[in-house]
Amino acid sequence: MYTLYRRTGTASYAVEVLLEELGVEFERVNVVNETGHQSLAGLKQLNPLGEVPTLIAPGGTVMTESAAIMIYLADAHPGAGMAPAASDPARAAYLRWMVYLATNVYMSYRHMYQTYGYVPEASLYPPIQEMARNTIIEEFQQIEDALSPGPFVLGDRFSAVDIYLAMFPDWHTEPEQLLSRFPALNRLCTTVNARPSIARVRANG
Amino acid sequence: MYTLYRRTGTASYAVEVLLEELGVEFERVNVVNETGHQSLAGLKQLNPLGEVPTLIAPGGTVMTESAAIMIYLADAHPGAGMAPAASDPARAAYLRWMVYLATNVYMSYRHMYQTYGYVPEASLYPPIQEMARNTIIEEFQQIEDALSPGPFVLGDRFSAVDIYLAMFPDWHTEPEQLLSRFPALNRLCTTVNARPSIARVRANG
Repeated sequence: MYTLYRRTGTASYAVEVLLEELGVEFERVNVVNETGHQSLAGLKQLNPLGEVPTLIAPGGTVMTESAAIMIYLADAHPGAGMAPAASDPARAAYLRWMVYLATNVYMSYRHMYQTYGYVPEASLYPPIQEMARNTIIEEFQQIEDALSPGPFVLGDRFSAVDIYLAMFPDWHTEPEQLLSRFPALNRLCTTVNARPSIARVRANG
Repeated sequence: MYTLYRRTGTASYAVEVLLEELGVEFERVNVVNETGHQSLAGLKQLNPLGEVPTLIAPGGTVMTESAAIMIYLADAHPGAGMAPAASDPARAAYLRWMVYLATNVYMSYRHMYQTYGYVPEASLYPPIQEMARNTIIEEFQQIEDALSPGPFVLGDRFSAVDIYLAMFPDWHTEPEQLLSRFPALNRLCTTVNARPSIARVRANG
């Protein structure tokens, strides 16, 4: 049994979708705030930074870092076919784009929404936000170029990296305008978002 | 045969050490500058961003993202024992810290040294640098806490994540002062840096 500390609107979403795709049992713990049903304080005993997602593996190991959790889970349940095996030539691209999303696209969103992590200003700092808005377009362009022939990151083959990728456009202030610039990405998101796993996760809030 | 596009002082160092540890054949291509022996233009045909490390896998797949390359290579050569297998309980911590280094410590160095990526100022922007200097201490403290009991990230077991981790303190402006604050990290770096693979990589410049 896995336990996933999650919060709506965070990267725990992709982990939750993957857990549904893998068909494994897991407990969802909503991390709301200090006074919520499941307190942030409880999570902080496991992970002092209180980040979501935090995954507790069946052996009790505490995992953070959404990309690491995605790689870990997909490899741990090879029967579901969510990741190319180590000997598969598609493995290189799979890992490359999984980590690219974490170190580039994800980071750009942090620069757009959490500038207080980078400059000592309590309010949002527009110069960082504006540059990040440009950077993220360049990053999605890189991905768009990689989605040829598509429709998935690994061509015909759906995998965990598609779940991770399809999460990010929705974080944008203008997701539809963003996706209209990137037809291959748009198609990928539409295809991924039609999966039953997504409906199940969204029904849970 | 692998081909590694590399430059001294970048994250290609950790990949090169890992390739040595794995005992696999690889070609090193020095990426110096537009007029160098091996031009940046050649790399840009493979990877438009011209990043190092860029790894060309035996099948011709182009890989970027140092953490992804480390995970990929260690898994591709399981006989070398540089990564826990997917079924190994140590796998979760291995992947967690590999990705943590890429999305946190590595990013903090970018904020220290490449502020032009985050604000539209041609010269270095001190407020971002100063906050990153504090953030990186918090990140190394997280790692220090995780190195109990040590001596490696996975306890008694040396793995690719130790190679990656041991690279980062040297990027600091004051590596010795930094390491003096973190005795477990200091011990890990000393142990890793004594390996013959490191001497071979350093001898190549």
